[in-house]
Amino acid sequence: MFEARLTQGVLLRKLLDSMKDLVQDANFDCSSTGFALQAMDSSHVSLIHMQLRSDGFDHFRCDRNLSMGVSLNNMAKILKCMGNDDVLTMKAEDQGDSVTFMFESANQERISDFELKLMDIDSEQLGIPDTDYSATVKMPSSEFARICKDLSTIGDTVLIAVTKDGVRFSTTGDIGSANVTVRSHSNVDKPEEQVVIDMQEPVALTFALRYLNSFAKATPLSNQVMISMSKELPVVVQYRIEDMGHISYYLAPKIEDEEMEGDE
Amino acid sequence: MFEARLTQGVLLRKLLDSMKDLVQDANFDCSSTGFALQAMDSSHVSLIHMQLRSDGFDHFRCDRNLSMGVSLNNMAKILKCMGNDDVLTMKAEDQGDSVTFMFESANQERISDFELKLMDIDSEQLGIPDTDYSATVKMPSSEFARICKDLSTIGDTVLIAVTKDGVRFSTTGDIGSANVTVRSHSNVDKPEEQVVIDMQEPVALTFALRYLNSFAKATPLSNQVMISMSKELPVVVQYRIEDMGHISYYLAPKIEDEEMEGDE
Amino acid sequence: MFEARLTQGVLLRKLLDSMKDLVQDANFDCSSTGFALQAMDSSHVSLIHMQLRSDGFDHFRCDRNLSMGVSLNNMAKILKCMGNDDVLTMKAEDQGDSVTFMFESANQERISDFELKLMDIDSEQLGIPDTDYSATVKMPSSEFARICKDLSTIGDTVLIAVTKDGVRFSTTGDIGSANVTVRSHSNVDKPEEQVVIDMQEPVALTFALRYLNSFAKATPLSNQVMISMSKELPVVVQYRIEDMGHISYYLAPKIEDEEMEGDE
Repeated sequence: MFEARLTQGVLLRKLLDSMKDLVQDANFDCSSTGFALQAMDSSHVSLIHMQLRSDGFDHFRCDRNLSMGVSLNNMAKILKCMGNDDVLTMKAEDQGDSVTFMFESANQERISDFELKLMDIDSEQLGIPDTDYSATVKMPSSEFARICKDLSTIGDTVLIAVTKDGVRFSTTGDIGSANVTVRSHSNVDKPEEQVVIDMQEPVALTFALRYLNSFAKATPLSNQVMISMSKELPVVVQYRIEDMGHISYYLAPKIEDEEMEGDE
Repeated sequence: MFEARLTQGVLLRKLLDSMKDLVQDANFDCSSTGFALQAMDSSHVSLIHMQLRSDGFDHFRCDRNLSMGVSLNNMAKILKCMGNDDVLTMKAEDQGDSVTFMFESANQERISDFELKLMDIDSEQLGIPDTDYSATVKMPSSEFARICKDLSTIGDTVLIAVTKDGVRFSTTGDIGSANVTVRSHSNVDKPEEQVVIDMQEPVALTFALRYLNSFAKATPLSNQVMISMSKELPVVVQYRIEDMGHISYYLAPKIEDEEMEGDE
Repeated sequence: MFEARLTQGVLLRKLLDSMKDLVQDANFDCSSTGFALQAMDSSHVSLIHMQLRSDGFDHFRCDRNLSMGVSLNNMAKILKCMGNDDVLTMKAEDQGDSVTFMFESANQERISDFELKLMDIDSEQLGIPDTDYSATVKMPSSEFARICKDLSTIGDTVLIAVTKDGVRFSTTGDIGSANVTVRSHSNVDKPEEQVVIDMQEPVALTFALRYLNSFAKATPLSNQVMISMSKELPVVVQYRIEDMGHISYYLAPKIEDEEMEGDE
C-alpha cells in the first residue's frame, strides 16, 4: 500500500508540467524514503532526476517499494483537474494496476478521485556520481528562463561562461549574435533575487538551448535555480523544492571550440 | 415596430455567446410579452429555450408579433462591437428585412448602429411539457462548468447521480476513470456558492459531455445553474437571468446501463 | 560612429511593432538631426514615415550620415529581449556591417548586447509635400483602433466622413452595415480623451480597413491619433511620440462613389 498526502497539491502539478515535455512515459519510484523519478528524455540526450522526501509530505506510507509506470502527459492532464488550493492524496495498491489521485477542496465540499491506469515501462537506473563542480551559479530561476528564451530567438546553442564576477550567456545565429551578462550580487532583503557564484576555476561550456528551455519549465517550482558545471561533464540545472526535495536536469555539453566556431 | 432597450447591453452579448456554438441560424420571437428563442442544435440532439420578459427591458415596444431569423454567429460578431458599458437598443420594422443594434456609450460621445440582415428560417416550435422532476440540483455555475470540462479530459460521457447528500459526476475513458462528488450545503452569506438538492427519488442518468460543455457557455449569465432530472426524461440545465428570464438547455440521456458499461 | 541612448528603451520596441507588419526590410537613416525611416509597405499601397529627433534621446552622436538596412522583423525580435525598464543604446560603426543593441537593467546587474547584421536595401525617398488638409481629427488612439477593428467584422472598406460636429465611420458587407459616430468634445481634465475637429470643409473618403488596422498597431505609442484628410489626397494617420517625433502613415483613398456603391 502506497499513500501520500500533500496539502499543497498544486506542487505535484507544477512538477509534472516540468517533466512532461521531455519525457513521455516513466516510472515513479515509491519507497519509505520518498517519491522519486529518474528518466532520460525521449531523444536520450538529457536526464531528469526528481526526488520528494517522505518527510516533506503531510502523510506518507509506503509498505513495499513500488514502481508506478505512468504516461506523464495523462498524469499531468489529471492534475490539471485539481483546484489550486486542493489537498492531494495519491494511493496505490501493492499489486494494483492503477494509481488514484484524490483532490479535496478546502471546505471538503467537493471531493474528486481520478484513477490513472499504470503501464509497464522498462527503465534503467543510471548512477549519478557525486561530483565537485568547478563552478556553481545560483540565480533567479525566472531570469535564467528568460535568458534561454531570449537567446533562442538568435541561435540554437548557448555558451555559458562563468567567472567570479558573473555569468555570460552567448549565442550566434543567422541574423546576428547576442551576449547576456549577469553580475554576481547579493541581496539580503530579497535573497530570491541574488546571483551567487561559487567558483574553483572558470568554466565555459556550450549547450543546446532547446533542452535548457525545457528545463526552465520548472521555474514555477522555485525562485532560484542552481547551475553546476565542470569541464567535459554534464551541467546540472537544479530547482530546489522547499522542505521536500528537488528536480535536477543533466545535459552533456556540445563538443566544439569554446569560441563557438562550427556552431550548428 | 419592435424596439427594446437594455441598459446592460452586455447581457445580450453573453446570451449570444451561450447559443452560437450550438445553433447556427434561428428565429428570435418578439411579442408583447418579451423576446424569446427556441431552437434545436445543429445535430438535432439538444434544445435551447431562451426567454427575456418585456418588463425586464428598460423600454420595450412590440406592436405586432415578429419572428426575426438571424445567423447567431453574425449577431454575436456585431454584439462584440458593443462597449462593455454601452446601452443597447434593438429595432426592427414590422415588414423589414433587417434588425438594427444601436450602442450608446455612457457619455453619448460614441453612437454606433449596426444593421444585420434577416433570414427566412423554417422552425417548428416544440411544446415543452411542464414536468415535476425527480431531482433538482442548484449549484455554482462555474463549478458545474469546471467539472464538465475536467471530466472531458478522461471520458466522453458523464453519469450524474443525485442523492439527498450530494451529486456525483462520473466518467471513464481509455486512460482511467474519475468521480467528482459535490456535497449539498447552504451558505447564508454567499448564496451563490450554495449547493441545494431538492429530491423526490434518487436519479442517475448519463449524458454526452460535449453538449454539457456547450451549455456551460452560459456560465457568465448566472452565478448558479439548476439541473433538473427524471428517469428517461431529458435533463434541463437552466441559467436564470436576474429580473428578466432564463436560458434553458434540454438534453436526452444516453440509454445504457447505469453502471456505464458499453460506454463509448 | 552612430550612438544613441534611450532611457525608455521600450519606446523603440513599440515603434518596431507598429511597422513590422507593413514593411519587411527598410533603411533607418541616422543623421545629426535624428533617427528616421521612410518606406512603402510591401504591397506598395501605403507609406510609413517615422522620425525621432536627436534631442529626444538621452545621448545622441552621429558623425556621418548612415543608412542602416535591417529586417524589421529581426530587429523587433531582438527588441523583444529587452526588459520593460531597460535602458537601450544603439551603436553602429560608419563602415560596419552590423548594429548593436545594448540593454541595461535598472540596477546594472544584467547587461545584454545583441548584434544584428545589416542588409543592403534599395530605397527611394519619396518627397512628402506639406499640405493644408481640409479636415483634421484628433481622437483617442484606442478608440480609432477599436472602430477600425469593429468595422472589419462587417466590411472591407470604411467611409470616413468629417463634419464639424463629429466623424462618422461607415461600412457595408454581406451580413449588413454599420455606422459609428464619434462626437467632437473637449475634456480639460483628460485631454487624452478629447475629440477635436479642425475643419475647413467637410470631407468624406473611403479607405481599405486592412491598412488602417495595420496603422493602429501604433496605438501603444500615443494616447491620441491625428487623422488629416483632403479630397483625393492620401489620408495621414499620425501618432506623436512625446518630446521625440512621430510616426505617420499615408494611404490613398479608394476611388468610388461616396455612397460606397461598388464596394468590394
